[in-house]
Amino acid sequence: MAYADLNENELSNLHETVSHEYAEMKARNLSLNMARGKPAAAQLDLSMPMLSLLSSADDCIAEDGTDCRNYGVLEGLPEARRLMAELLDDEPDNVIVGGNASLTMMFDTVSWFWTFGTLGSKPWREYDSVKWICLVPGYDRHFAITEHFGFEMIPVELGAGGPNMDEVERIAASDERVKGIWCVPKYSNPSGATYSDEVVRRLASMPCAADDFRIIWDNAYAVHHLFDDEADQDQLLDIGAACREAGNPDRYVKFGSTSKVTLPGAGIAAMAASPANIADLKKHLTISTISGDKMNQLRHVKFLRDGTGIAAHMRKHAAIMRPKFELVDRKLTEGLSDVGECSWLRPRGGYFVSFDAPEGTAKRIVALAKEAGVVMTGAGATWPHGNDPHDSNIRIAPSLPPVEELEEALDVFICCVKLAYLEKLIG
Amino acid sequence: MAYADLNENELSNLHETVSHEYAEMKARNLSLNMARGKPAAAQLDLSMPMLSLLSSADDCIAEDGTDCRNYGVLEGLPEARRLMAELLDDEPDNVIVGGNASLTMMFDTVSWFWTFGTLGSKPWREYDSVKWICLVPGYDRHFAITEHFGFEMIPVELGAGGPNMDEVERIAASDERVKGIWCVPKYSNPSGATYSDEVVRRLASMPCAADDFRIIWDNAYAVHHLFDDEADQDQLLDIGAACREAGNPDRYVKFGSTSKVTLPGAGIAAMAASPANIADLKKHLTISTISGDKMNQLRHVKFLRDGTGIAAHMRKHAAIMRPKFELVDRKLTEGLSDVGECSWLRPRGGYFVSFDAPEGTAKRIVALAKEAGVVMTGAGATWPHGNDPHDSNIRIAPSLPPVEELEEALDVFICCVKLAYLEKLIG
Repeated sequence: MAYADLNENELSNLHETVSHEYAEMKARNLSLNMARGKPAAAQLDLSMPMLSLLSSADDCIAEDGTDCRNYGVLEGLPEARRLMAELLDDEPDNVIVGGNASLTMMFDTVSWFWTFGTLGSKPWREYDSVKWICLVPGYDRHFAITEHFGFEMIPVELGAGGPNMDEVERIAASDERVKGIWCVPKYSNPSGATYSDEVVRRLASMPCAADDFRIIWDNAYAVHHLFDDEADQDQLLDIGAACREAGNPDRYVKFGSTSKVTLPGAGIAAMAASPANIADLKKHLTISTISGDKMNQLRHVKFLRDGTGIAAHMRKHAAIMRPKFELVDRKLTEGLSDVGECSWLRPRGGYFVSFDAPEGTAKRIVALAKEAGVVMTGAGATWPHGNDPHDSNIRIAPSLPPVEELEEALDVFICCVKLAYLEKLIG
Repeated sequence: MAYADLNENELSNLHETVSHEYAEMKARNLSLNMARGKPAAAQLDLSMPMLSLLSSADDCIAEDGTDCRNYGVLEGLPEARRLMAELLDDEPDNVIVGGNASLTMMFDTVSWFWTFGTLGSKPWREYDSVKWICLVPGYDRHFAITEHFGFEMIPVELGAGGPNMDEVERIAASDERVKGIWCVPKYSNPSGATYSDEVVRRLASMPCAADDFRIIWDNAYAVHHLFDDEADQDQLLDIGAACREAGNPDRYVKFGSTSKVTLPGAGIAAMAASPANIADLKKHLTISTISGDKMNQLRHVKFLRDGTGIAAHMRKHAAIMRPKFELVDRKLTEGLSDVGECSWLRPRGGYFVSFDAPEGTAKRIVALAKEAGVVMTGAGATWPHGNDPHDSNIRIAPSLPPVEELEEALDVFICCVKLAYLEKLIG
C-alpha cells in the first residue's frame, strides 16, 4: 500500500521500523559516494595503453610534420580536429580542439560573448540584464557559469523528449535580452533524456527576439550509450544541420570532450560551430593561448583513431556501467514501488539517474544520507541557484562506486527516502 | 669607418657591393627562422624520458592517494604546487597549478579583474578607461592582452637593470585608472634585462593612485640561465617578499611555466599570489574548470622532482643555448661593429637578443630579411600596438635553428642591416 494511503497509526509504526533500520545503517559508519559523475577505476584502466603511445621523438610528429613537442597550432592538430569532429558530428574545419575541459571552453565562450559580443553584436554586458533559459533538472556547473555573470536564469521543464518547447519558444521570442539556452541534448545530465528530432528542429528554427541568441550545445554524452545494440541507443539530430536548414547557421555552439571517454581532467575538449562563429571566437582564443596540449591530442588520436575506434572503446565502458544502472533501477523498484510519490527514469546512456522524491523531501533525504555516510549531489543542484521549488529532484550518480558499494549506498538511500517521506506525512 | 662618416661616393660604392651580396643571398632560396622563442629539437629531446613515467595505474596515484586519472583537485596536486613554488619562489599554499599555458592564466586574471574587480574593488570595466604600464621593448603577447580589453597602454623604457622607475612611479601615482604593469623581471623578453633589487623594492613600495594596482610578474625565464656558474647568473629579488615588506601584500601576481623547461604547449603553468588574491581568483577558477591536467602535473613532478632537479635539467638546456647566443654576439660584432648606430645586449639567460638598428630602419631590415628567406619577429612587435616610434628595435630569437642555420641566418640579417642603413643614409 502507498504510504499516502496509510492511517496515522500505520504511519507511526512504519516510522518506528524505518527509523530503527536507519539507525542500524548509520552505525555501520559507511563512507560511500553517489555524488558526481566520475568514472570508476575500472573504466580509467581502459585507457592506460594510451599513456605509452608517445615515447620517442618520432612518435611526436603529427601527420603534417608538426613536432607536437613545440609551440603552435592554435586550433589543434588536423588529425585531432578530425577525431573530435566525429564526436561533435561536424566537419573538422569547424572544430577547435582546446585544453582538458569543455567546461572551460563554455565558460570562455559565454565570457567572450558577454565581454565582446558575437559576430559584431552588442556585447551582452551592455544590457541592463541578460536572461538565459535553463532546463530543469539540469547541470549545476552550467548554471554556475550563467549565475557568475549575473544572468537572470529562467527555468523551463525538461521532459523525456527534450524541453517544453512551447515555453522555450515563448521566452526566446519575448525579449531580446534572452540570449541563450544551456542544452545537454543527449543522455542529458541528469535525466538521461535525448531531444527528439522535432525539438532540435524547433530550437533551430524558433523566432528569437535576439539576433545573437545562442544554443550552447554541450553534447557531453554523445557516445556514452549503455547498450551495444543500435536499436537500444538514442539518436540525436545534428543541431548544426538543423540550424543551417532553418536559416540560422550561427545560432549554435557545440562542445564535447573525451573526459568520460579516456581520462577525466586528462582528456581533450573541443568545440564546433559555424565558420563565422569559429573565426570570431579564434580572435579571442589567439590572445589567450598559443595552443592546447598537442601531445595529448596526438595520444588521443593514436589511441582512439576514429569514430569506429571511439565506439569500440565506449562499449567497454558500457559493459562496466550497465550493471550499475540496472542495479539502481532494480533496487529502486524493489524498495520504493510500494511507497508512492517517487519516480525515476531509466536512461539508455549518460552518467545519471534523475530521481523525483515526494515533494518537499529532497533536502531532508540528502541530509539523512550524508549523516549515514552516503554522499549525494546536493538537493536542488539540478536547478538554477541550487533552488528546486519542489524540493524533489535528486541526481543519482552510480558510476564511481564498485557494484557492492553501490548496492549498499542504494539501501541507505532508499531508507532515507522512506524516512523523509514518513516524516513529511506524519508532519 | 662608421657608415655615417662616409661621403656620398663611398656610400654609393658600398651600397652597390652590399646590394650585390644581398642578391646573392636571396638567390640561395633560404628558409630560416629567427622569429619566435621556440626551443630547438635537441632541447625537446631532453624531456623525452618524462613521457614514459606514467604507464601503470599505480604510477598515477598522487602522494595523498588521489587517482590523477579522475576529476578533481582544482588548485593542483600538492606535489605539483610544491614543484612550481620552487620555480615561482613562493610557498606551495600560495600556488595554483593551471593548464598548459601561463599566457592563459594571465589572460584569465586580467579578464577577471576587469569583469569582477579584485578583492572587492570596482570592476575595471566600470571605468571610462583603464591604463596599463607597458615596458619597452617588451613581450608582444602581453601587449595583445591589454590591447584586447581596450586598455590604454603607456610605454616606459626598460633598461639594463629594469624599468625607468621614476617614470613608472610618476604614472602609477598619477591616476587611479592606471591599474597595473606587465613585468618579465628576469632575462626579460626581449632585452634579457633582470630587475635590480632596488627596482623590485620600488615597484613593491611605490605609491599607487589605484588601491587595486597589480604587478603582473611573468617570471617566464626564472631558471633559464645561459651559464652554469652562479656568479654568471642573474639573481632576482622576490616580489612577494618585497610587497609584504612594503605593506602592499596583494599588489603582485606571479606566473611561470615549464614551457621552456620541458615541452612548450605540453608543460604545466602556475601562478602564485597572496592568500587573499588566491582565494579571490579561485572563486572564478572554480566556475571555469574542474582542475588542470593532473596526469601531466604528476609526470612533471616525477621527472623534475624539485628545485635541484630543475636546475640540473636547465644546465642541459644551457649547453645547447649558450653556443647560439655566443654565435649571435660574435657575428654581430664581426659584421656590424664598424657600421655604427647598431647596438645589442649580451643577456646571461632567457631566449632573446634585443637588437637596436639605426633609427627608422627596423621595418625595412625585417622586410629585406623575409625577402631573402629569413623570418624575424615583426619590427615593432616589442612595442604596444606593434608601433615602435623609433622603428629601431628587432627581437632576435636564436634558439630554434641549429647552429649552422643560425650562422647563415645571421649573415643574411647583417647584410640586411647594412643595406637598410645605407638606403637610409643615401636617402
